[in-house]
Amino acid sequence: MTDARLDCLLARVPGLRLTRDPADLAHYGRDWTRRWTPAPLAVALPGSVEEVQAIVRWANEERIALVPSGGRTGLSGGAVAANGELVLSLERMNRVLAFDPVDRTLTVQAGIPLQAVHEAARERGLLYPVDFAARGSCTIGGNIATNAGGIRVIRYGNTREWIAGLAVVAGNGDLLELNRGLIKNSSGYDLRQLMIGSEGTLGVVVEATLRLTDPPPPGNTMLLALPSFEGLMRVFAAFRERLTLQAFEFFTDRALHHVIAHGAAAPFGQAHPFYVVTEYAGGDEAAEAAALAAFEHCLEQGWVGDGVIGRSEAQAAQLWRLREGITESLAPHKPYKNDVSVRISAMPAFLAETQALLAREYPRFDVVWFGHIGDGNLHINVLPPPGMADGEFVGHCERVTKLLAEALSRHGGSISAEHGIGLVKKPYLDSTRSPAEIALMRGVKRAFDPNGLLNPGKLFD
Amino acid sequence: MTDARLDCLLARVPGLRLTRDPADLAHYGRDWTRRWTPAPLAVALPGSVEEVQAIVRWANEERIALVPSGGRTGLSGGAVAANGELVLSLERMNRVLAFDPVDRTLTVQAGIPLQAVHEAARERGLLYPVDFAARGSCTIGGNIATNAGGIRVIRYGNTREWIAGLAVVAGNGDLLELNRGLIKNSSGYDLRQLMIGSEGTLGVVVEATLRLTDPPPPGNTMLLALPSFEGLMRVFAAFRERLTLQAFEFFTDRALHHVIAHGAAAPFGQAHPFYVVTEYAGGDEAAEAAALAAFEHCLEQGWVGDGVIGRSEAQAAQLWRLREGITESLAPHKPYKNDVSVRISAMPAFLAETQALLAREYPRFDVVWFGHIGDGNLHINVLPPPGMADGEFVGHCERVTKLLAEALSRHGGSISAEHGIGLVKKPYLDSTRSPAEIALMRGVKRAFDPNGLLNPGKLFD
Repeated sequence: MTDARLDCLLARVPGLRLTRDPADLAHYGRDWTRRWTPAPLAVALPGSVEEVQAIVRWANEERIALVPSGGRTGLSGGAVAANGELVLSLERMNRVLAFDPVDRTLTVQAGIPLQAVHEAARERGLLYPVDFAARGSCTIGGNIATNAGGIRVIRYGNTREWIAGLAVVAGNGDLLELNRGLIKNSSGYDLRQLMIGSEGTLGVVVEATLRLTDPPPPGNTMLLALPSFEGLMRVFAAFRERLTLQAFEFFTDRALHHVIAHGAAAPFGQAHPFYVVTEYAGGDEAAEAAALAAFEHCLEQGWVGDGVIGRSEAQAAQLWRLREGITESLAPHKPYKNDVSVRISAMPAFLAETQALLAREYPRFDVVWFGHIGDGNLHINVLPPPGMADGEFVGHCERVTKLLAEALSRHGGSISAEHGIGLVKKPYLDSTRSPAEIALMRGVKRAFDPNGLLNPGKLFD
Repeated sequence: MTDARLDCLLARVPGLRLTRDPADLAHYGRDWTRRWTPAPLAVALPGSVEEVQAIVRWANEERIALVPSGGRTGLSGGAVAANGELVLSLERMNRVLAFDPVDRTLTVQAGIPLQAVHEAARERGLLYPVDFAARGSCTIGGNIATNAGGIRVIRYGNTREWIAGLAVVAGNGDLLELNRGLIKNSSGYDLRQLMIGSEGTLGVVVEATLRLTDPPPPGNTMLLALPSFEGLMRVFAAFRERLTLQAFEFFTDRALHHVIAHGAAAPFGQAHPFYVVTEYAGGDEAAEAAALAAFEHCLEQGWVGDGVIGRSEAQAAQLWRLREGITESLAPHKPYKNDVSVRISAMPAFLAETQALLAREYPRFDVVWFGHIGDGNLHINVLPPPGMADGEFVGHCERVTKLLAEALSRHGGSISAEHGIGLVKKPYLDSTRSPAEIALMRGVKRAFDPNGLLNPGKLFD
């Protein structure tokens, strides 16, 4: 190494895997956002908790900022390293450490991909239920950093609900063993809960003990076509009343257009303005009858225009692809993304207002909506008109986001439902959190990271 | 008032209900622990959020310590006011504020008793599932302060899982609206979660938005008699494997003795050393058959010696009374209480070690055990031998608790499963939380309460 500080790190942690290869700096220096130019000092790939502790202690002595790094599938710039930071990638710490059948817990290193967790649970006859499209690339550590949600929150809740314990390297290098898998533990502040969703700004999550559960009965999947927005929440209510919903995912005609252009099969002979993929606990005739009753009720009311049931696993996968393929199909267009939420009860008014806002502000833009309607969570993707320069495009979108943030503030919503604040949403944090809350958050940050070295500039300056 | 500081408070909050009546000071100055002599400065009974804010601002100016107060059913001294504090009782703030059928949330003032929440949910066709014997006296605010658990954690989790939003008066009098009922909200540190279980040391919870759920199918209740400790966890495993358990509560022969002495009917013709009350989702023949299969399997293995099913609601209530009446039946004896937890998988080893420890250390004492075995939570109640002075008794018990804390530390357990640390467990906090964790907790406390006025001396000094 040509940097004396890095030489010092290597002397202190012999055998530490460290790279300054420009391709590595570019690869590890950013997440799925593309707005910042990666410029880390170096990338460390520790292989053990002790190495992470040594790196954090060194960083405090040398006053080097650290960017904890998982699968970097985030969309808020939470894992961007653009200011000479050391990227602390957990990707080599990706093993299952323990399984306890009595506690029904799986202890893993933070760098394990979500899909590997799913497989490890399945091999043991159990389920880790948090799931989303990035499952193959994202890591549990990153999921914890953003309290990741996804497609089955309606049934199983967010990542937070499934964390029985965390091992965290604190801002001074101490190792914290938070909650240690206990079900009941009323012994002071639950720092585990504080750590979840803190975007790497309070400590480095190195291990997690995950709760597992029984796999549900086989789910049935149905695709619904809707003639208008107005009926959407009524369709949700009709299905929720009759069935145990595992997913209720909404997307627009424009979203379907892109997924089909990307290779998916068209589900209906004609186009409809809106679609829903829903999955419900099936496996018996009563559930089938209830699903049909919900569908027929919505058809009679005119809230639904058409529908198709996934009769086999392959058919269900095809229906799911229409929803799960959206993000990938949009990626080449470099969309500007909003990820917002309101209470379900506030959805109708918020949807109407937002639809009007976007129609007015993005007249020439391709606006693609989709989201987890059952959680009050909406993803809005704006694609640049052909030929518009990046800077002009983002500038325009930022102005619209400001208006969206004002609408969210009026409706008691959140500017970030599941991706975190990171760099991208930092200017809008005050639409969701009050000045008093932000002041307390800063106080917590100072207590955990007095030298300001853990993912600085993310969440707030 | 004869205290100038209180005159100042009354001048600032005209109409504030404030009392210095000695009977009130004694009544509001302590919880169900009886080890401290109440000595508050006065008791304030605010009627609105604005009054709570004004009191907190006044307390900062006058440097008066505040003790937030709910139903004072705690057993850790968390609500004791013995040092000239102002007791801030929320008991007049006990109303249901809002119900939203789409969000399925109930918004209440913090002083509402748990039982009134149950009733409000039931009237709306829904369930607030956190439950325990103190339901008639304890308040939601106190439940939140300790992240209360109780008898249905095995099915529904602790209080934490059911809090969609909190309104909290911060240490400086600011009103915080935390999470505002959102399902997905990844916008920085989840201060709502930090507040839950913080025992009134970080803010005053004034309102809560509670999630409700569908009532379960009618539960069936079964009482089991066990010949030995060794089979207990096996019986639990046999029932959990076959049924959806809603409760799995353990108690000893000595516990039954006290409940029967207190008026309950003896369930069996002969005595058995150990008992379990279990409740499982019933309502269909499959569940009945599964319950019988579990029972017969345990009988064949010799883990269970006898059993009785509650065939009617009245019979089920009788069986439940055997478990729920324990605390009340012991109260006149002024028991010394431990409330500890370990992971379920650590239960067999911990139980064996603890049984040996208590037999050795309390040879002359009546030791009554019960607990939520399915959550790894054990309550140990020690009754003083006749004629032993209070001080000698508590001193002896404290020495044993020190040994118990060492055992917990070895088994990765918690010195407080569900009652909080308060004053009683403060000397043993370090058996459950590391010095690094305690240092961070102190940092959080300073950020939220720089003048150290919120329930000082509880949790830590």
